[in-house]
Amino acid sequence: MTRFRLRTWIVPLVFAAHPLPGAAQSGANVARAYREAHEAEIVSDFAEMLSYPNRARDTEDITRAATYIRDRLREVGVESRLLKIEGAAPVVYGELRVPDAARTLGIYVHYDGQPVDPSNWTHPPFEPTLYTASMEVGGEPRPLPEPGESVDPEWRLYARSAGDDRAPIAAIIPVLRAFREGGVAPTSNLIFFFDGEEEAGSPHLGEYMERAKEMLEDIDIWLFFDGPAHQSGRPQLAFGVRGAMGMEVTVYGATRNLHSGHYGNWAPDTGNILARLLASMKDDDGRVLVDGWYDTVEPIGAEERAALEAMPPVDADLKRELGIVRTEGEPATLPERLLLPALTVRGITSGNTGSLARNVIPNTAVASLGIRLVKGTEPAHMRQLVIDHIERQGFHVVSEEPDMATRLRYPRIAKVTGGTDGEPAARTDMANPYVQEIIGAATRAADRAFGKGSLVLAPGMGGTLPLYLFTDVAGKPAINVPVANHDDNQHAPDENLRIANLWYAIDLYAALLTMPVPVF
Amino acid sequence: MTRFRLRTWIVPLVFAAHPLPGAAQSGANVARAYREAHEAEIVSDFAEMLSYPNRARDTEDITRAATYIRDRLREVGVESRLLKIEGAAPVVYGELRVPDAARTLGIYVHYDGQPVDPSNWTHPPFEPTLYTASMEVGGEPRPLPEPGESVDPEWRLYARSAGDDRAPIAAIIPVLRAFREGGVAPTSNLIFFFDGEEEAGSPHLGEYMERAKEMLEDIDIWLFFDGPAHQSGRPQLAFGVRGAMGMEVTVYGATRNLHSGHYGNWAPDTGNILARLLASMKDDDGRVLVDGWYDTVEPIGAEERAALEAMPPVDADLKRELGIVRTEGEPATLPERLLLPALTVRGITSGNTGSLARNVIPNTAVASLGIRLVKGTEPAHMRQLVIDHIERQGFHVVSEEPDMATRLRYPRIAKVTGGTDGEPAARTDMANPYVQEIIGAATRAADRAFGKGSLVLAPGMGGTLPLYLFTDVAGKPAINVPVANHDDNQHAPDENLRIANLWYAIDLYAALLTMPVPVF
Repeated sequence: MTRFRLRTWIVPLVFAAHPLPGAAQSGANVARAYREAHEAEIVSDFAEMLSYPNRARDTEDITRAATYIRDRLREVGVESRLLKIEGAAPVVYGELRVPDAARTLGIYVHYDGQPVDPSNWTHPPFEPTLYTASMEVGGEPRPLPEPGESVDPEWRLYARSAGDDRAPIAAIIPVLRAFREGGVAPTSNLIFFFDGEEEAGSPHLGEYMERAKEMLEDIDIWLFFDGPAHQSGRPQLAFGVRGAMGMEVTVYGATRNLHSGHYGNWAPDTGNILARLLASMKDDDGRVLVDGWYDTVEPIGAEERAALEAMPPVDADLKRELGIVRTEGEPATLPERLLLPALTVRGITSGNTGSLARNVIPNTAVASLGIRLVKGTEPAHMRQLVIDHIERQGFHVVSEEPDMATRLRYPRIAKVTGGTDGEPAARTDMANPYVQEIIGAATRAADRAFGKGSLVLAPGMGGTLPLYLFTDVAGKPAINVPVANHDDNQHAPDENLRIANLWYAIDLYAALLTMPVPVF
Repeated sequence: MTRFRLRTWIVPLVFAAHPLPGAAQSGANVARAYREAHEAEIVSDFAEMLSYPNRARDTEDITRAATYIRDRLREVGVESRLLKIEGAAPVVYGELRVPDAARTLGIYVHYDGQPVDPSNWTHPPFEPTLYTASMEVGGEPRPLPEPGESVDPEWRLYARSAGDDRAPIAAIIPVLRAFREGGVAPTSNLIFFFDGEEEAGSPHLGEYMERAKEMLEDIDIWLFFDGPAHQSGRPQLAFGVRGAMGMEVTVYGATRNLHSGHYGNWAPDTGNILARLLASMKDDDGRVLVDGWYDTVEPIGAEERAALEAMPPVDADLKRELGIVRTEGEPATLPERLLLPALTVRGITSGNTGSLARNVIPNTAVASLGIRLVKGTEPAHMRQLVIDHIERQGFHVVSEEPDMATRLRYPRIAKVTGGTDGEPAARTDMANPYVQEIIGAATRAADRAFGKGSLVLAPGMGGTLPLYLFTDVAGKPAINVPVANHDDNQHAPDENLRIANLWYAIDLYAALLTMPVPVF
């Protein structure tokens, strides 16, 4: 494996002076003042970045998107370059070293976005469109602001990956620019590591990190700038993510679709067979019935339990917003439920419905299962539990389309695929001293941007990030530091960022970059 | 309602002579000899008819297809015209009256075909293509035969509605031509009534029959020329059909798709909810668990029971052919199972599977249910049983998309649509004297074409035809007289007719048209 080489960086002169005591507050003020003076430009620059299509697998597009970001980082004094592995989207790497740095922060962002189906979008996903408010509450499209024009923090910028996950890039760049122009030096060395394949499952991230090992070695803590704010709208830090894997189950009837008149009541009814199998996997209360499903879950500690209990209640509001009366696992709350492994149906396909429905008994029925893992539930183990469960329901499990001999041997056959490239969960101990520093800085920024006591500490987030590569493989603490609004439609059409959340990101990053020299 | 008017028909001179005793055998011989002398032309004429697209809802196409058939009927002495109801495909009506007719036979055929998706067909569905054998056993395409060229009865003609249901038209026309040329008069008056909307559920057939009431009044027995032969490959007569209806159930989760990471374990899992509902409807042995499902089934009589027991066993061969080890309701046989109402899943749609699967919890899951009815199970009643069952599973049943107020009132909501235009089942008493005559004639034709004792008498077919309009509404006996090969891929791509079955149809119709004057 070719290792990415270390370079000798020249420390930018502008950051040469050691920060004075009080630099933290001053840095935050400088960034805030800069933002207030340049709101229109910051929004327009963000829109420009969002106009670069960024699907991980479109190599030319993603490389253009990466190059754009590299160049913007260079403009603000970051020594930046693209790391490249053949056949993979590049990593945008950057380094900013300061004299007498108190620590080294690793900053992870992903600059790729979910695939898009433009036909479901109100505007083309890579033609960023500014709205006066969210579409749901009657926001109207409006032009990008002219330089100097005032910006309403309730405006929303609609485009793919506005929230997930290019907003952090759009915020860190003006912070660094403000610091350069204001003569503020960060108190930590900064290592930027921007993934271009997160939405494709970060298939090369481990290899990128291994090749860049020496360049990442002195990082003390990783900050994951990704994900949305807490559902209450309040800012949050999160100390763990769930892992994820997908599996697919296909059950078989006759070798071909059969006429439902001529064979109905006799031919295997694939839809019903699959339904019975899925029903066997989870009870009406949302408890997964797969044997051993919860057995290996690592219990949380006292600190995490306390954080959990201090979290603002969200269930009632969310249920009202989403039109739900009853949730899985009631009365357990959403944050509690996110600390357990989940099994959901991502999709079912069999025959047709609606105007396409025909009088057949489909020869197959397929279910795509989404599985979320927590600390202690390893992908390979959970995959095997699912297979064991399917076998216990009387199915002969195969991994390929069954041939005629197989069909004529077993009364019930299920093909099970996927789940071999599952991503493990990760969790970082909240008592770690570097973690405590981050909690402190984020608390200051959140107090300022959203009011005293607004920061939420979430022991575990429901989504999945390749955090385990940092925590378990590289052995560093890693915290999720999200900034996007919780209703940003990530992974969906009409993804957007609320401008107020961009302003919060600027405050937050300024605070993180000027954390005082630790006393420990 | 405008009634279709009776016309005074001029009896074609060629049929003026009363048939001599022995006309039956002679008619059959004349038809057989004519067929043997004109095999290539009969096949080519059939191909020409099949080149007319015939989807019921394509008004221009279906009218062209109808006109073509009307003109061919006129050529063989049938007074034929199109009956038309605004917005409906025409009925091809025809009348052939003979002096001293022993009875009047009503002949039903449908000339429309199932919708096609040409991309699934080996050849375009309306470019009839002759094969040297079925594609499955390695048949090869070949040109249509030249006049006089010998025709292999194992050849297959591939085109939409080759089997279902234009083959009977392709057979009756040469029989009538043979009779004209050979001076044979039918022993019955013939009324042709060709439906152009059967595959669309015959929505206007009842109205057509009502308007044509006077023209149909003196029919003694209806013959339904439709459907495939018995699965054993042997010819059959059938004395009942199942009714059919479709229903659709949609279950609801949140108002929008949710991220399976952020909400998995908490949000309603629509795929699982639907699966549990479907699983509640039928047990693993194929017994429908909807309360009252079997309660109103009209039991069959002794004659039907005897016929059932005399039917050749097909289950073992069918299972081998279709790659099935276990059927619903084992050890009950297929013919037995067809005498019960069926509930099958025609399709399930929720989210996506395969490469389109995404990390969401779909906001809906939809199942299309196919229901087959038997005598005694009325559509409206069975529909209500399904709704009652869904309610008993804890669902609030609605017929429209639920609004927010409804969503926030009920923990489980199911939208149920369809089933209001169900088609009832029908059965004709096998002891009826006209029925006995038909059994006699068909036995003679089958003995001749396929060997002594080959005719199968099936108390009930699994499929659905609008037979109840004839039996229950018009009050006449009605028998299903199928001729197509059982493996004709009806309702599917690569539909085809085996030429041997066309030859059988010619023998059969010749026998039916020359049944002796009854002694009763």
